[in-house]
Amino acid sequence: MNYEAGKAIGILDSGVGGLTVVREFFQHLPSEKIVYFGDTNRFPYGSRPHDEVRHFSLQIIDFLITQEVKMVVVACNSSTAAGLPYYQQQLEVPVVGVIEPGARAAVETTRSGRIGVIGTSGTIASGAYEKSIYALDRSLEVFSVACPLLVLIVENNLIHTPEARKVAYEYLYPLKQAGVDTLILGCTHYPLMADVLQDVVGNDVTLISSAEEIARGAKELFTSQNLLTPLKEGTHRFFVSGDPSNFEEIGRKLLGSNLKAYRVTL
Amino acid sequence: MNYEAGKAIGILDSGVGGLTVVREFFQHLPSEKIVYFGDTNRFPYGSRPHDEVRHFSLQIIDFLITQEVKMVVVACNSSTAAGLPYYQQQLEVPVVGVIEPGARAAVETTRSGRIGVIGTSGTIASGAYEKSIYALDRSLEVFSVACPLLVLIVENNLIHTPEARKVAYEYLYPLKQAGVDTLILGCTHYPLMADVLQDVVGNDVTLISSAEEIARGAKELFTSQNLLTPLKEGTHRFFVSGDPSNFEEIGRKLLGSNLKAYRVTL
Repeated sequence: MNYEAGKAIGILDSGVGGLTVVREFFQHLPSEKIVYFGDTNRFPYGSRPHDEVRHFSLQIIDFLITQEVKMVVVACNSSTAAGLPYYQQQLEVPVVGVIEPGARAAVETTRSGRIGVIGTSGTIASGAYEKSIYALDRSLEVFSVACPLLVLIVENNLIHTPEARKVAYEYLYPLKQAGVDTLILGCTHYPLMADVLQDVVGNDVTLISSAEEIARGAKELFTSQNLLTPLKEGTHRFFVSGDPSNFEEIGRKLLGSNLKAYRVTL
Repeated sequence: MNYEAGKAIGILDSGVGGLTVVREFFQHLPSEKIVYFGDTNRFPYGSRPHDEVRHFSLQIIDFLITQEVKMVVVACNSSTAAGLPYYQQQLEVPVVGVIEPGARAAVETTRSGRIGVIGTSGTIASGAYEKSIYALDRSLEVFSVACPLLVLIVENNLIHTPEARKVAYEYLYPLKQAGVDTLILGCTHYPLMADVLQDVVGNDVTLISSAEEIARGAKELFTSQNLLTPLKEGTHRFFVSGDPSNFEEIGRKLLGSNLKAYRVTL
């Protein structure tokens, strides 16, 4: 047995958004151990300077290392945009971000060649999705819109309110006008309100979330490197930096099971 | 390889006292993983009702379980006295307390047949040491003194002050008068001020701490059950419920290496 294989997959996010990645891991790698850290006390990351987000992310990664991980998933677009190559340099285990997998999926999906991207201010300002998409195909057109309010709507459980719908419409209207046929949900919080976004943007637009791509990519990597867990049933550990109750409630809804989160101060 | 063997030894205490147990594990089982939880935010346990201490201890044990442990050491006399058999019932892994190993070592050490015990109010009131000692040898005499101030002296880094010495003298004088030749340090905090206690009580009295007995017992158990870690080097994780800085400072002094403690809210 490869001792490393029994270690956990570490997932970090600024809040609850990365739970959409956890959901995909439950689906694709149900026996793997998961350790999650949501920095709910310092949420949101999207409007913070890059060096601050990078510092916060490294603090979380240090904590995840204490939890014995064989891979770290930076399940936060702002954090990925702020310094993925930097985290990769610091760590011996593979570090996966959310931007490249989402960009790749969008490039494979679009037929019109017009891709929309929504994300936090930090992610959009970084131009990370454009760079990833152009690296794959220079001929595509990318239209980006920063949507800072959407994460707040999700973190505060306001998804199914008329205001949320109005806000989504305001953000997405220019992308509809631009004729995109593929929309990257460039923030792990957005899949939590996918039904609202799909309704606003219409059924002829395909929504892309990185979550599934990441889980599938991890499965391939573990298979090829003999790192699939030997366990029958994985344990799941959730840590947050703020009050756990709201996180637990959203987690319960999303993952369909009770979950306990511990509050950790970094 | 036995997968369980790679798991950690979980150690719980109300504060820094259990670090004396950690020190012995470093000595006797240097490659084992250690996960420590010090409930510094709710310290001290010694003057709390037993059912409350039991509840707190079970909360910590739940947390230690998330950290994947093959054994739990209740490195707190108050917590052991409050409900060791109860924790053992709840858990599948071995749960070891501090009272029985200390009692056994004292019975083997005494020549005069007069054993002194010092501990917190809760531990002394429980009569747990008397019971353990009498179960081993009915002919021995046990003299117990509750010393509630000593843990406060240790937790607040006041060990080498004239007040600490005066307080120790007040507590230990009746035991000297009773002619004990063996003194059980019935609180894991006390070994941290062993030099002061030894000086006050005199060199003809042997101090007994449970810490070494526990580490040795664990080594025997792991050896017989094929549970010794396969790792070359163990990781050490420290968690506290209060401010980590004082804990880190005492830990640094005691263990001779930098340690990082995370604050976790139970």
